[in-house]
Amino acid sequence: MSQERTEQYLIKTADGAAPRMARAGRPWPALGNKAFLAERLLLTRMMESLGKPPLDLVLWDGQVLASANGAPAAQVLIHDRGALLKLIANPELGFGEMYAAERIDVRGDLVQCLEAIYRSMRGAGRTPIAQKLLAPFNAPASNTQPRARRNIHHHYDIGNDFYKLWLDRNLVYTCAYFPEPDMSLERAQTAKLDYVCRKLRLAPGETVLEAGCGWGALALHMAQHYGVAVRAYNISREQIAYARERALAEGLDGRVQFIEDDYRNVDGEFDAFVSVGMLEHVGVDQYQTLGAVIDRTLKAGGRGLIHSIGRDRPSPMTPWIERNIFPGARPPSLSQMMQIFEPYAFSVLDVENLRLHYARTLELWLARYESNVERVTQMFDPAFVRTWRLYLAGSVAAFRSGDMQLFQVCFNRSGDNRIPWTRHHLYAP
Amino acid sequence: MSQERTEQYLIKTADGAAPRMARAGRPWPALGNKAFLAERLLLTRMMESLGKPPLDLVLWDGQVLASANGAPAAQVLIHDRGALLKLIANPELGFGEMYAAERIDVRGDLVQCLEAIYRSMRGAGRTPIAQKLLAPFNAPASNTQPRARRNIHHHYDIGNDFYKLWLDRNLVYTCAYFPEPDMSLERAQTAKLDYVCRKLRLAPGETVLEAGCGWGALALHMAQHYGVAVRAYNISREQIAYARERALAEGLDGRVQFIEDDYRNVDGEFDAFVSVGMLEHVGVDQYQTLGAVIDRTLKAGGRGLIHSIGRDRPSPMTPWIERNIFPGARPPSLSQMMQIFEPYAFSVLDVENLRLHYARTLELWLARYESNVERVTQMFDPAFVRTWRLYLAGSVAAFRSGDMQLFQVCFNRSGDNRIPWTRHHLYAP
Repeated sequence: MSQERTEQYLIKTADGAAPRMARAGRPWPALGNKAFLAERLLLTRMMESLGKPPLDLVLWDGQVLASANGAPAAQVLIHDRGALLKLIANPELGFGEMYAAERIDVRGDLVQCLEAIYRSMRGAGRTPIAQKLLAPFNAPASNTQPRARRNIHHHYDIGNDFYKLWLDRNLVYTCAYFPEPDMSLERAQTAKLDYVCRKLRLAPGETVLEAGCGWGALALHMAQHYGVAVRAYNISREQIAYARERALAEGLDGRVQFIEDDYRNVDGEFDAFVSVGMLEHVGVDQYQTLGAVIDRTLKAGGRGLIHSIGRDRPSPMTPWIERNIFPGARPPSLSQMMQIFEPYAFSVLDVENLRLHYARTLELWLARYESNVERVTQMFDPAFVRTWRLYLAGSVAAFRSGDMQLFQVCFNRSGDNRIPWTRHHLYAP
Repeated sequence: MSQERTEQYLIKTADGAAPRMARAGRPWPALGNKAFLAERLLLTRMMESLGKPPLDLVLWDGQVLASANGAPAAQVLIHDRGALLKLIANPELGFGEMYAAERIDVRGDLVQCLEAIYRSMRGAGRTPIAQKLLAPFNAPASNTQPRARRNIHHHYDIGNDFYKLWLDRNLVYTCAYFPEPDMSLERAQTAKLDYVCRKLRLAPGETVLEAGCGWGALALHMAQHYGVAVRAYNISREQIAYARERALAEGLDGRVQFIEDDYRNVDGEFDAFVSVGMLEHVGVDQYQTLGAVIDRTLKAGGRGLIHSIGRDRPSPMTPWIERNIFPGARPPSLSQMMQIFEPYAFSVLDVENLRLHYARTLELWLARYESNVERVTQMFDPAFVRTWRLYLAGSVAAFRSGDMQLFQVCFNRSGDNRIPWTRHHLYAP
């Protein structure tokens, strides 16, 4: 094994036990097409700019750029020169694209690999600085109603059968709540629905407006177990169709109305407002509009809860997620979220950060996804299969590493004193 | 009784049972010096601009501007024309100044009178509009270190003997926490100290930085009951002197260091940062500096808690409070508070609004103040006695009506996973 050392990374030629690809049946590219010294140096610079994540990079020619930063969390296999150049040119976009195209692989734990990258990037301060510079250019286009429909269609209308492969039986596609960390996904999603209802202090006979209702699990749960009437909005056609069928089948169609429309077109008056997992898609420039919708529809004694992915500071999504998974999405920081409430002087009563619960939820989704990956493979092309694996694994890593947060914010009309005296009631046995 | 009606208010001449002043021994001004129609109309306009609070206004000449807005919460007695004109010219400043000077009195419950005003002003949208227009001119001067010392001296160095008359035995001059609403003040203040310590998850042997330590109650409680070493900062000379004496007397001077200095001059490294009731005095333009202090001194596994009066939206204090009680103070909205955390990517874990607990705390302070008012009268001039009564009563009203909030914000270093899985531990029996 020959070795040469750049400033930080040990470059070594792999010994006889040459790297093998994670997927079997694909030939390792022939040696001879050696990576140039310049390419290895650029790769080293890239790793330094990412904060030196503890990873070994294995090139197609067998050369290894080994982590000098402790035991590697995983090996990243770069299968050709083109993939290497795409990675160097734009690591945040190139990694995902080349991974989806099977031109980059990860040997070892994919989540740990991605968590190592997230943590080292944050340590290097790369994210904030780059994001500060790029922020003005990175702001997503405003989510007008037609654009919102396209964005939501992109993600949520992939097909209910696909989501059934890896979500819980009620298709709750948001962070679960685990009173005990080892609770099953099914129980933790039900616990989340109940936790939301208890935070809202729903009483029988009340009316609830839900903005962004997914496949309807929360709306149906509120109607069935808390005796409220729900009007639930969503612009995903497939989700609404599914939710309506469930309401009919469960005899709840008299108490739950599923409406395929934009939250901005809501009317009526309600005792409670709830939105779980929609705010990520709203766009910060529409928060004041959302606040106006709540202000227009919430009764005098009303209260609300917004559950959303968030950030510790205003930050864009990674461009790969923005392009491939969630167009138009932008999880807010708390200061951004306050743009919903402060213009209308809503009173924020309670903010809870459930970040680790989302990491756990995503771990369970990823495990189900992997155990059903053969069926996903029958439904979609290989790039889709790998894109969604990377998205789920990357999301586990993002919540574990603190790159993403999960905020539940409770609020009510300012000056209304019918609020809980303490939070004890939420945790009583 | 003769009556005439303006647009909204019924103006009537008092009948034989003419209004009597709240304080005995002061003659009611002679009739004959009648309020002009123009004055009564201006007063009516003022009440309309305040959202028509349900109050009767009784003029020195016996005329009554009666609430047409339901049963009056109280009667406001205006004893002379000068007081009337000051009130009309600037209600928010004039009311307090004329009340302190005994030229305005309130007959009935002072708190209910003030709460009626707060609620009607908010209903009229007066506060936000006026505040929006005036905001650029209302921003208090930046709290430089010398100015901060003057501001803090103004309020907190009045004399420990004065505060002993109406605070709890440990002189905790911040919102208490009442697990049960009828708990005594002493027990509720101890419960608050414990609640803060539990939220901080203090472990024996850890180090804590406290910014703005008052008379030292929290620092001493943490050291005695949680086994931590505390460095506590305050720029109030009288408070620090008192706290040092207590530490000596209780044998805690080896574990609690009281330092008379500005929070901006802190150094060292700590496991936890805590600040209870200082942020109100910091000034929003210094929040990023405060964040830098926390960032500089908090260890990798560190966490923190900031407890502060707040607002539902950015708003100035009333000018009377700003001038007479808390120069340089500005309780923040949550979006403003986030200026401490977001620039350094601290992760906000938990926000709790304890507004009603501060209303209750202030009720108990006010009751103790009134029951010791003879002793206050021996120590200070009558204007001081009335100013502080109005401040305490007005604060009860502000928290009851939702004009003021009380936020406890817990945070930690971003990405640190040694955070509580749920909040159950805070509410376990």
